[in-house]
Amino acid sequence: MAKVVAEISMSLDGFVTGPGDSPELGLGAGGERLHEWVVKLASWRKQHGMEGGEDTRDSQLLEEAVQNTGALVMGRRMFDHGIRHWSDNPPFHNPVFVLTHRPREPLVKEGGTTFTFINDSIENAIAQAQAAAGGKDVAIAGGADVIQQALRAGLLTELEIHMVPVLMGDGVRLFDRTAGEPVEMELIRLEQSPDVIHLRFRTV
Amino acid sequence: MAKVVAEISMSLDGFVTGPGDSPELGLGAGGERLHEWVVKLASWRKQHGMEGGEDTRDSQLLEEAVQNTGALVMGRRMFDHGIRHWSDNPPFHNPVFVLTHRPREPLVKEGGTTFTFINDSIENAIAQAQAAAGGKDVAIAGGADVIQQALRAGLLTELEIHMVPVLMGDGVRLFDRTAGEPVEMELIRLEQSPDVIHLRFRTV
Repeated sequence: MAKVVAEISMSLDGFVTGPGDSPELGLGAGGERLHEWVVKLASWRKQHGMEGGEDTRDSQLLEEAVQNTGALVMGRRMFDHGIRHWSDNPPFHNPVFVLTHRPREPLVKEGGTTFTFINDSIENAIAQAQAAAGGKDVAIAGGADVIQQALRAGLLTELEIHMVPVLMGDGVRLFDRTAGEPVEMELIRLEQSPDVIHLRFRTV
Repeated sequence: MAKVVAEISMSLDGFVTGPGDSPELGLGAGGERLHEWVVKLASWRKQHGMEGGEDTRDSQLLEEAVQNTGALVMGRRMFDHGIRHWSDNPPFHNPVFVLTHRPREPLVKEGGTTFTFINDSIENAIAQAQAAAGGKDVAIAGGADVIQQALRAGLLTELEIHMVPVLMGDGVRLFDRTAGEPVEMELIRLEQSPDVIHLRFRTV
């Protein structure tokens, strides 16, 4: 079965956006600070159809994640925000399954990205993504709530936090309070770059 | 001027206790999971007047922190909980300044620990601790609220998070929501042990 992997940039104090996120202001006030490290990378620029950028270890790590991905799952809020900014050739180049309560027809874009809208459980969305991933990994693209759902449902195989050494102070938290027993994780990779700390965990 | 340093064990999801902390249940339900890595160390046992324990890199790091400390600042809740458990020879062996709104006489214990109760600002508590530290570091012992106060007041020189790879789900957060501009930090040491990830930051 395909692995289910989530990667997300998070501030030291646990936020994945600045304060006041909305479909209009996807990352909240100042939230782009959390993505500064990634948007300058050669691999990120390539994914977005641009040339140039920094060819660093960070860029390699992102390139590996992109190569390993065969399908994605994302939340409706992330889609609503992103679709305002993605070009006709979105940066996914794979089937994307969007969790939503509003049924709509699939949206076929250039470059291999098709958005399929799923009015169903996270379990079934992931199962459909796994069936479409051709043996590659399923990436939970976000937002935080969808990553949390997958984690709490025991469906996430690996979680990589790109920790940005800044205290945002407010915003959307990756980890909200939840009931239930503590969940043990295992650190499987730890790397430090000048901009970010990569912490990769496997669920135990 | 003496450095002001805070070190604290935190879960991957940002909690420094389990749910339901109180003077009676200092670390909340299941919160002792966050201190499992430290209580088995030789240096921790020595600090607490016990022999034996594991002589590992984790133990060295704790020993260094102990050696560098000349005075401590702690909150009243931490004191109220701790005093139920510390022996007549508490594990600090240095002057301890306790922030409280209830004035009381200093409490002199064995082994070099004196608790002085300060009904004043965090700034003045730290200044008194610096004066008493004999050129060594001032440690902000906790809890999370006192560490946050020092950090937000720009008084903290270094912050070391001992990240325990578990999702606690609930408890006291190290980082509550705060207003104000983001605070940039600089990673100055990163070490991994089988039990815990040590992330040491300097305020920028």
